Amino acid sequence: MYKIILQINCNDQKGIIAAVTSFIHEYQGNIVYIDQHVDQEQNEFFMRLESKFQSNSIPLKQLEEKFSQTIAKPFNMTWGMQTSDQKPKMALFVSKYDHCLYDILGRYSSGELNVEIPFIISNHIDLKPIANNFNIDYYHIPVTKENKGDTEEIQLELLAKHNVDFIVLARYMQIISPKLISKFQNNIINIHHSFLPAFAGAKPYHSAFKRGVKIIGATSHYVTEDLDEGPIIEQDITHVSHSHTINDLVLKGRDLEKIVLSRAIKLHLEKKTMVHNNKTIIFS
Amino acid sequence: MYKIILQINCNDQKGIIAAVTSFIHEYQGNIVYIDQHVDQEQNEFFMRLESKFQSNSIPLKQLEEKFSQTIAKPFNMTWGMQTSDQKPKMALFVSKYDHCLYDILGRYSSGELNVEIPFIISNHIDLKPIANNFNIDYYHIPVTKENKGDTEEIQLELLAKHNVDFIVLARYMQIISPKLISKFQNNIINIHHSFLPAFAGAKPYHSAFKRGVKIIGATSHYVTEDLDEGPIIEQDITHVSHSHTINDLVLKGRDLEKIVLSRAIKLHLEKKTMVHNNKTIIFS
Amino acid sequence: MYKIILQINCNDQKGIIAAVTSFIHEYQGNIVYIDQHVDQEQNEFFMRLESKFQSNSIPLKQLEEKFSQTIAKPFNMTWGMQTSDQKPKMALFVSKYDHCLYDILGRYSSGELNVEIPFIISNHIDLKPIANNFNIDYYHIPVTKENKGDTEEIQLELLAKHNVDFIVLARYMQIISPKLISKFQNNIINIHHSFLPAFAGAKPYHSAFKRGVKIIGATSHYVTEDLDEGPIIEQDITHVSHSHTINDLVLKGRDLEKIVLSRAIKLHLEKKTMVHNNKTIIFS
Amino acid sequence: MYKIILQINCNDQKGIIAAVTSFIHEYQGNIVYIDQHVDQEQNEFFMRLESKFQSNSIPLKQLEEKFSQTIAKPFNMTWGMQTSDQKPKMALFVSKYDHCLYDILGRYSSGELNVEIPFIISNHIDLKPIANNFNIDYYHIPVTKENKGDTEEIQLELLAKHNVDFIVLARYMQIISPKLISKFQNNIINIHHSFLPAFAGAKPYHSAFKRGVKIIGATSHYVTEDLDEGPIIEQDITHVSHSHTINDLVLKGRDLEKIVLSRAIKLHLEKKTMVHNNKTIIFS
Repeated sequence: MYKIILQINCNDQKGIIAAVTSFIHEYQGNIVYIDQHVDQEQNEFFMRLESKFQSNSIPLKQLEEKFSQTIAKPFNMTWGMQTSDQKPKMALFVSKYDHCLYDILGRYSSGELNVEIPFIISNHIDLKPIANNFNIDYYHIPVTKENKGDTEEIQLELLAKHNVDFIVLARYMQIISPKLISKFQNNIINIHHSFLPAFAGAKPYHSAFKRGVKIIGATSHYVTEDLDEGPIIEQDITHVSHSHTINDLVLKGRDLEKIVLSRAIKLHLEKKTMVHNNKTIIFS
Repeated sequence: MYKIILQINCNDQKGIIAAVTSFIHEYQGNIVYIDQHVDQEQNEFFMRLESKFQSNSIPLKQLEEKFSQTIAKPFNMTWGMQTSDQKPKMALFVSKYDHCLYDILGRYSSGELNVEIPFIISNHIDLKPIANNFNIDYYHIPVTKENKGDTEEIQLELLAKHNVDFIVLARYMQIISPKLISKFQNNIINIHHSFLPAFAGAKPYHSAFKRGVKIIGATSHYVTEDLDEGPIIEQDITHVSHSHTINDLVLKGRDLEKIVLSRAIKLHLEKKTMVHNNKTIIFS
Repeated sequence: MYKIILQINCNDQKGIIAAVTSFIHEYQGNIVYIDQHVDQEQNEFFMRLESKFQSNSIPLKQLEEKFSQTIAKPFNMTWGMQTSDQKPKMALFVSKYDHCLYDILGRYSSGELNVEIPFIISNHIDLKPIANNFNIDYYHIPVTKENKGDTEEIQLELLAKHNVDFIVLARYMQIISPKLISKFQNNIINIHHSFLPAFAGAKPYHSAFKRGVKIIGATSHYVTEDLDEGPIIEQDITHVSHSHTINDLVLKGRDLEKIVLSRAIKLHLEKKTMVHNNKTIIFS
Repeated sequence: MYKIILQINCNDQKGIIAAVTSFIHEYQGNIVYIDQHVDQEQNEFFMRLESKFQSNSIPLKQLEEKFSQTIAKPFNMTWGMQTSDQKPKMALFVSKYDHCLYDILGRYSSGELNVEIPFIISNHIDLKPIANNFNIDYYHIPVTKENKGDTEEIQLELLAKHNVDFIVLARYMQIISPKLISKFQNNIINIHHSFLPAFAGAKPYHSAFKRGVKIIGATSHYVTEDLDEGPIIEQDITHVSHSHTINDLVLKGRDLEKIVLSRAIKLHLEKKTMVHNNKTIIFS
């Protein structure tokens, strides 16, 4: 038996769901999940569907071809079909903060994340011992104003060599170049330590303290060329008070950051995210 | 143009979604919402679907008949089809607490709730002025041990006379009889002032205070014969501390109760709730 | 027996708490609540204290004089002493939205708010029937570009005539003039329908929808001359998704707005707020 | 310079705060934090105070003696005075689940927790590699019905030998004996995977699934002889829906468990918890 996850995007029009579900039915698939969204303003249709197929039924390759011809083409769809046994490759970019890294590697070790982690890249040496403990390669690639272009080339080579599918910036603190972004469109996940769009940019906890907010937050989003402006995947907040110092905000924020980032990674891995018009559709 | 909301429940089996969506497509309907749930343990299938039809397309009555014959019967479905212009009738049962009543009537007045409120029943006279302000009939039906049977008959008559669709116990504080419950199965919504199953029964805030919990909650649920054991529709909580007295808990709890109850009423009105096996499916 | 609430602000220095609590002790007061905050950056000390006095002990007037001479002057304090039986006067400014108004008046009617409401001012006639139902005077004062100065004078006269202590903008939607703000410094409470500083200004729900945030919020704050930049009293949020339309955000937001505004009103009434440097200290 | 944390409990009576703060003032201390709580029902007074002393002022030992004689005795106080440079010793008891362990050790490694961890005890060998990675001794002490008494003796010896101050049950899954509990009264912290008092005992996620709740929670509490009935330190919840399987609840719950447990550990370390009458006072 195998299970497919199907993602579809096209102009909204009558009969899409009927056509897709009838197609699945025709090839003996059993739909175990279906969810759709219509962006009424943009007249765009989005769908995520999971279906199980018996092992003696049509092979995946053939199913994809049939779907392409009889459904995707007529409806002019952008689409993707994955099986759940494909294990994506995720590269981690870190700096000096270790809380998100520990959280991700803890989940990875306990089997909570269905992913491979070929390597960790950092502009600092500090977190190498953690990578060693978890038996993951660690590339220390210092970034300076002068060597930015070179380091990017090294990064791109590593990513290509290991067939990395997506990148997680686990508090990386460096700006990603347009070239890297364009190669990994909607495949670079960042965690920002504020409830965006409030406090974009540097030192959000300092700004939150100064403004005297009663809630602080964290936001995971796909990276685009506009800093902290990419499609938001997940956000959460916690309550704070006048009695909290900037350092208290930083400590409380860490717990938000790691949970919100890990939730985003999971949603991405389970193909529950779609991006349109700089916004996400997050299927449940 | 008219819009239908279709709810379906049957044994899980291949081809249901394809059959239903193809049916809608055949009669020129445009599906604007579809969500389903499969209870894997019980092998039960649940679906909620919204579809728009042009006014010159098949009339609702005929659509229902066709659906019954070609879809519902073959799949052995329990199902319901409503149009959004049907305005359900909701009876309110209250006691002496006014916060839920104000919240419901405020929403009702501002048009937030698509509902008619033919009358309010109470075992106390206290809230009559509020009913008057909102121009709603108020029946003061005192309940004593001796007259329980009689008062129930009066209530049943009023409910029948006004074709009431469902009942909301907005802090009614009286036990509903099995007869009334059986006549309004999954159509009586109660608000309980705790995060059930904790602190079922009387005086939950006192129990919460005694236990020293750090969160208190409220739970809206359908009423069954087992007190506070019915299918849960919605729950929410708020944080409390050692510094809160019982009275503080009561005051903080009020805000939870009214919001949680109103959310449940809305979900019920929008046909987003289904009940199976003493649990709810709540469609988004 | 009478109870005082004492608020103190002065430069941080050794011995303040000892001096104040010894003073209370000397006059037979029983301290039932004490909380303090030190702004380390600004070296400012803030304190809130509640104390009970037997009716045969020193009269309030005399206590105030003694405190002024022996404590407040030596420590160069800004301070205030209130008894809990003083009922403040609160004026409500509204526009066309009724949810905050219903919430406030519901609490007011049930005795939850220890306040007098001498009148409601609105630039629209729409909510007059609600005011009538609750037996509160309603002044319809339309605001146009031309008559802004005049309407302000009428408002100021009403506020003066009724000895109003503080103003609540329950979705008033008009900009308050510097003159009114300066007369009611830290005594005008506004509710803004976003988690400030995100989405300040007009149409925050539209902006939130456009940005694709996963949380929306509401913020109550004291009004200053800088629009939506005043000291924040209380904030809360709720989770939203891609499936919510702007109208859904508006409806979900209403529940936040009314709860967050009412919490701020209560904090203000209980003298639990202090303002310094455009931030609030909120005592528990 | 040194800083003390002072915790006080005694019968409520006039003049306590004045006496304590005057005492601190007399010995040149600068109070940087004060919070108190009065249990009105029980007439009990609780206080937590932080004060800084210059290094040339009275030595800690002497301060304690003076306080004992002039304040604690006359008021008949239960009290404790700690300096912030004392590093408590915390023993971890684990079973097979690693998420809480990773979370604690990650915080420990990054210096977030001011604590020593002399060893980890487990009835299973599974988590030994994690202990090794963090360079902490790991004692594999299997527990069977037959050897319960012996294993307890081994545990007690280890705890005594390393002068352990408190124990954290990071999903230990074994019942702690009355002897161990009495030796570490209010010094054993457990994490229970439900919002107590709901779903006490075994398999709370299974029970939560069966009941169809819309929120799940986690509770950290001090261990007493009554299983899951000890004083609650911290609780938090997350929202769930009908679509979540038991396994989903387990995964979502893990994030709650680790955060709630770590918060409790921090509160305990910062001496922000006091216990009375099977409830906690948690200072902010």
